[in-house]
Amino acid sequence: MGSVTVYGPPISPAVSRVLACLLEKDVVFNLVNIDMSKAQHKSPDFLKIQPFGQVPAFQDEHTTLFESRAICRYICDKYADRGNRSLLGRRGGGLVERAHVEQWLEAEGQSFNPPSSTLVFQLAFARQMGLPQDPAAILLNEGKLAKVLDVYERRLQESRFLAGDEFSLADLSHLPNGHYIRAGGKEEFFTSRKHVARWWEDISMRPSWRKVVEMQRTPPA
Amino acid sequence: MGSVTVYGPPISPAVSRVLACLLEKDVVFNLVNIDMSKAQHKSPDFLKIQPFGQVPAFQDEHTTLFESRAICRYICDKYADRGNRSLLGRRGGGLVERAHVEQWLEAEGQSFNPPSSTLVFQLAFARQMGLPQDPAAILLNEGKLAKVLDVYERRLQESRFLAGDEFSLADLSHLPNGHYIRAGGKEEFFTSRKHVARWWEDISMRPSWRKVVEMQRTPPA
Repeated sequence: MGSVTVYGPPISPAVSRVLACLLEKDVVFNLVNIDMSKAQHKSPDFLKIQPFGQVPAFQDEHTTLFESRAICRYICDKYADRGNRSLLGRRGGGLVERAHVEQWLEAEGQSFNPPSSTLVFQLAFARQMGLPQDPAAILLNEGKLAKVLDVYERRLQESRFLAGDEFSLADLSHLPNGHYIRAGGKEEFFTSRKHVARWWEDISMRPSWRKVVEMQRTPPA
Repeated sequence: MGSVTVYGPPISPAVSRVLACLLEKDVVFNLVNIDMSKAQHKSPDFLKIQPFGQVPAFQDEHTTLFESRAICRYICDKYADRGNRSLLGRRGGGLVERAHVEQWLEAEGQSFNPPSSTLVFQLAFARQMGLPQDPAAILLNEGKLAKVLDVYERRLQESRFLAGDEFSLADLSHLPNGHYIRAGGKEEFFTSRKHVARWWEDISMRPSWRKVVEMQRTPPA
């Protein structure tokens, strides 16, 4: 086994973001389940590597990290010569290409993630946790998400992927929440927009992401 | 004048994040005001460089970018040899040092920013815009912010700055919202926590940030 370990359940969107990145990069990793129903993410040992008590946490030899997007950047920088080499801009693409990936990765984190995370919780997790859905929160965040995807539609009319011609971390980072929103019966957010539909089909059929979805269906023992 | 232009008013937290970074890096820049009361951020020309209709937008020769944290990373990479050379980890610090900055920069963007942005709007901007304050939103987000700062307090007990011994983008990125929360009468979030108080005093007294505050008080014509 390799020196890389991810701590957290694959059904967590943030954990699945890191798994998709590791699979794109052909980096071998161990997955250690954290049973959140038993509050293992709030245990003193876990808080030493993830002080906010969230998942995932990540370890590579003596380096520990948290925050899924920061972990993905580290994986791309550390394993620059493995697997997909254009997740943070092509080799030789220079700092402007990396900046375009960063720009759309931040758009995901700041514009797409807030409404889509609320929808993922409402559509996928609330019922599992025995909590009632909040129709007002769903409506409010559907409106916010629609506005974000309207911007994406215009962008994806002129560009195959968000940051340019190549699949990048910026696209990958949308897969976890997008997957749950579609599975929660809200496919029309993606299918009703021609270029967003083409983009989603493209990125969600990648072998890396199909493998993550399979891991979500067959959680570790 | 240099080739770098920032579009947006300095009173915007996201604009001021980019200005602080440029001043730390000793990069000469032009500042072009965008009058949001006249909806200049929604004009077709502005939407070409900032498709979400938000501020700031940024230009360096033929490169245009949006998203303040992505712009800051670009400035640090492009002007690696100017001004403060450790904002993304020290030269020679390697990718682990950069990853620690990224980890805490993401913590700012994902954990500190959501509740603090709501508080900034409620405490500083709502009244200016003739909108009533929302006491329930203030209370809810004060609770969320307190939990985040409790994590920071433990971190800053063992480390001078968030990512380690050096002031970095991770610290800088907290200045815009932190400034408005203090100015809005909520100093106790910072002063009631010993190590957070020491950290805030340290980062907010930097000449770069004092200059930004001065620019906020004397907006461009």
